[in-house]
Amino acid sequence: MIKKPEQLARKLGLKFNDPQLFIMALTHRSMGANNNERLEYLGDAVLGFVVAQKLYEKFPAAGEGELSRLRASLVNQSSLAELAREHSIGDYLILGSGELKSGGYRRDSILSDAMEAVMGALLKDQGIVFCQQWILQIFDEKLKAVNTEVCKKDPKTQLQELMQSRQLNLPVYELVTQTGAAHEQTFNVKCTVELGKEPCFASGVSRKKAEQAAAEKMLNKIKKMNS
Amino acid sequence: MIKKPEQLARKLGLKFNDPQLFIMALTHRSMGANNNERLEYLGDAVLGFVVAQKLYEKFPAAGEGELSRLRASLVNQSSLAELAREHSIGDYLILGSGELKSGGYRRDSILSDAMEAVMGALLKDQGIVFCQQWILQIFDEKLKAVNTEVCKKDPKTQLQELMQSRQLNLPVYELVTQTGAAHEQTFNVKCTVELGKEPCFASGVSRKKAEQAAAEKMLNKIKKMNS
Repeated sequence: MIKKPEQLARKLGLKFNDPQLFIMALTHRSMGANNNERLEYLGDAVLGFVVAQKLYEKFPAAGEGELSRLRASLVNQSSLAELAREHSIGDYLILGSGELKSGGYRRDSILSDAMEAVMGALLKDQGIVFCQQWILQIFDEKLKAVNTEVCKKDPKTQLQELMQSRQLNLPVYELVTQTGAAHEQTFNVKCTVELGKEPCFASGVSRKKAEQAAAEKMLNKIKKMNS
Repeated sequence: MIKKPEQLARKLGLKFNDPQLFIMALTHRSMGANNNERLEYLGDAVLGFVVAQKLYEKFPAAGEGELSRLRASLVNQSSLAELAREHSIGDYLILGSGELKSGGYRRDSILSDAMEAVMGALLKDQGIVFCQQWILQIFDEKLKAVNTEVCKKDPKTQLQELMQSRQLNLPVYELVTQTGAAHEQTFNVKCTVELGKEPCFASGVSRKKAEQAAAEKMLNKIKKMNS
């Protein structure tokens, strides 16, 4: 039994001038030609813009690449499906019988598309200013939780890219010692780069972790050299 | 000799509350840390949104995929570089000496990035409503010229996707005859699909062209069957 769209609109804090737009936003293509695909296209565009602008303001020191990664971490199928689930959007989806039987209302792709379509419908119904406010409100918690640390690349990748950007040889990692019993080993590695004359040493419970730690030390050393 | 940014702003019909933002939009990363990369990120997002919304309104019958292709045909490095050239933006770019010597002000990537950065600066300086107006004005001719025909996929691709969407076997193309002298050959091909019982025949000056023509005939036949 499909619940009433007006109920969902109320829960979402929305009142549509044209309620048909909201119904269309909830209608999957399995219902035929009048579906939410065009609204999803519109919603995807406005969502991308609103989040990009917010991140630009929130992280004045973040570079372009970092901002793009931050956005991708916030706006993606699984985060949109999560938001859709928080608001029980699946209960209100209008699906064809095939999708209904196979549990389409639980699927990430369908939930995420509907979420974007709601944003598109809102843009069309009430314009960019209100739509922007609503998106920021819906994303509020996720926006508060996001930070640049999460989106930094791991130290080995950062170090490699730094070397490439200066057209230097790639960092070299060597295993120096490997000690301890089978399941409690400690790995010591050495990281050498063309740039810094002194290598960096670090240890870890796996070779990979030791290499990351050594790369991090090297990055810090290079930063100090430059400052 | 670099020309004055105010001159360019006037030519573009812009008056910045914060002229430093406009200068930053024209500043390539070869000049150091205070460059246009962040503004370009912002401009890319607002441009994508504005054009998506416009196309949504302009083509009420176009599907989501078609709208995406239309947008990609309008918003891309070469179209942005073209707009930048029309407005002589290259003359006003602020480039490091290396880029200056190597003619960076002529490069598509640098011109296109600056164009987006100007949009980002405008958004930040004057908000979405004015920014949107200006982008639509700058893109006016391109938006008038765009049409869904340009962005349709070729007939063979369309036919293939149609079969896939109905979970049928892919179309089969067979060369029936190949006649004429070496440089004036005519190719006759037959296109068979699972769906239509009768195959379609078409000819062309190359095998590829004949196949496209046969696919087009088949598409028209299927459309008639469905209507």
